Amino acid sequence: MAYVEQMLDTLDGQQGLSDAGARSLGLKQSQNAKFQRFSQHSVIFYEGDRAERVFELDEGIVMLYKLLPDGRRQVVEVLNPGTIFGAAAGDSYDCSAETLTPARISTYDRREIDQSAPLQKHLTRCLISQMELMHDHAVLLGRKSAIERVATFLMRMVPDRSGEGCIGPAEAEPDTHEIVLTMTRQEIADYLGLTIETVSRVISELKRRGLIKVERQDRIHIARVCGICQLTGIH
Amino acid sequence: MAYVEQMLDTLDGQQGLSDAGARSLGLKQSQNAKFQRFSQHSVIFYEGDRAERVFELDEGIVMLYKLLPDGRRQVVEVLNPGTIFGAAAGDSYDCSAETLTPARISTYDRREIDQSAPLQKHLTRCLISQMELMHDHAVLLGRKSAIERVATFLMRMVPDRSGEGCIGPAEAEPDTHEIVLTMTRQEIADYLGLTIETVSRVISELKRRGLIKVERQDRIHIARVCGICQLTGIH
Repeated sequence: MAYVEQMLDTLDGQQGLSDAGARSLGLKQSQNAKFQRFSQHSVIFYEGDRAERVFELDEGIVMLYKLLPDGRRQVVEVLNPGTIFGAAAGDSYDCSAETLTPARISTYDRREIDQSAPLQKHLTRCLISQMELMHDHAVLLGRKSAIERVATFLMRMVPDRSGEGCIGPAEAEPDTHEIVLTMTRQEIADYLGLTIETVSRVISELKRRGLIKVERQDRIHIARVCGICQLTGIH
Repeated sequence: MAYVEQMLDTLDGQQGLSDAGARSLGLKQSQNAKFQRFSQHSVIFYEGDRAERVFELDEGIVMLYKLLPDGRRQVVEVLNPGTIFGAAAGDSYDCSAETLTPARISTYDRREIDQSAPLQKHLTRCLISQMELMHDHAVLLGRKSAIERVATFLMRMVPDRSGEGCIGPAEAEPDTHEIVLTMTRQEIADYLGLTIETVSRVISELKRRGLIKVERQDRIHIARVCGICQLTGIH
């Protein structure tokens, strides 16, 4: 299996837990939980691999994607720490999983999840949150313009803003934010249902309007967070 | 709450179960499960309503949708019998739910689900299946052409075809299928991320190619199932 080949480090789950690891309900419940460290752009599993294991992302960012036979790709989820992934309805994974950054990932036997009520509960909570994100993403893919998609993507990386009841920047604070991108332009395009050319065009347009500065390929300075938020289509 | 106003019939869950109802794990586990009958196009809950209940669709079809403030709508899921819906991460529903056909729906108190391991397990299984459908739908919305979207939509209503290992129609059987649509052209457009004009144009194109006949607004005769399947983008 891909994740074994990519595995850089395996430790017993009871040892050497960071705070993030200790917060993971799974690790506390399971004698058999192992964690592995993956380097950036490691494949954890491929679509169609036998789904014998379920994973929990402890640290780092992971993307899930699906391919059409002619090579078109859709990134279906971008996962943050705390998310469980790889739970399959059938015998095989319905999508591929790849790290976008170095990552630490806990691994569970699939049957273990089936048999443990606390693990079930944890998984259910994760799935409900992921489902709500998928609903939002369906709105983005099905109904939003290119500029709205990119603005929504940028706002997801600004903590505590754009949600219901956001009243703008804290008093006397500048309305700016620094974003470190973990995705290439192609990955962003494949996540937002756009072409790479459209993503680049929209980023240039946002620069032209003075709303962002691109400081390096992977660093974006948002000069006016409210300005970007007003382009997300939710106002 | 909307579902109370729309309720046509409330019975104790232990009484008068049809086969479909008896199969529902929830009803067997819960003294408090109630079911209600809803007429077509009844709203079960609105986005933003307090999420105090969780629902299980026993009979009929339900759509979940989200609206943008300017009125753009995305149908995010179309649910078949057996699906649990309305499980929320926060205090309120993240989308609206409306019946597309007359429906029978069981209702659970949210806390009841939290406290019952068998209900949790049932909910988890449903969520995993729904998540896989959402992944497929993200591919449709993000990467498929209009004709591929409509062909994929039609193939979802042809049982036992288009899946992995499909070898075409049963021997000596005609490769045709009758579909009864439960969605209007506008609802289909809102589900597939298209305009109503594009849906109509694609249906005309499929007619012109001799692949379908539209017998009534809500009835489509597929003249060649393999022909439609080959347009779905999965070949």
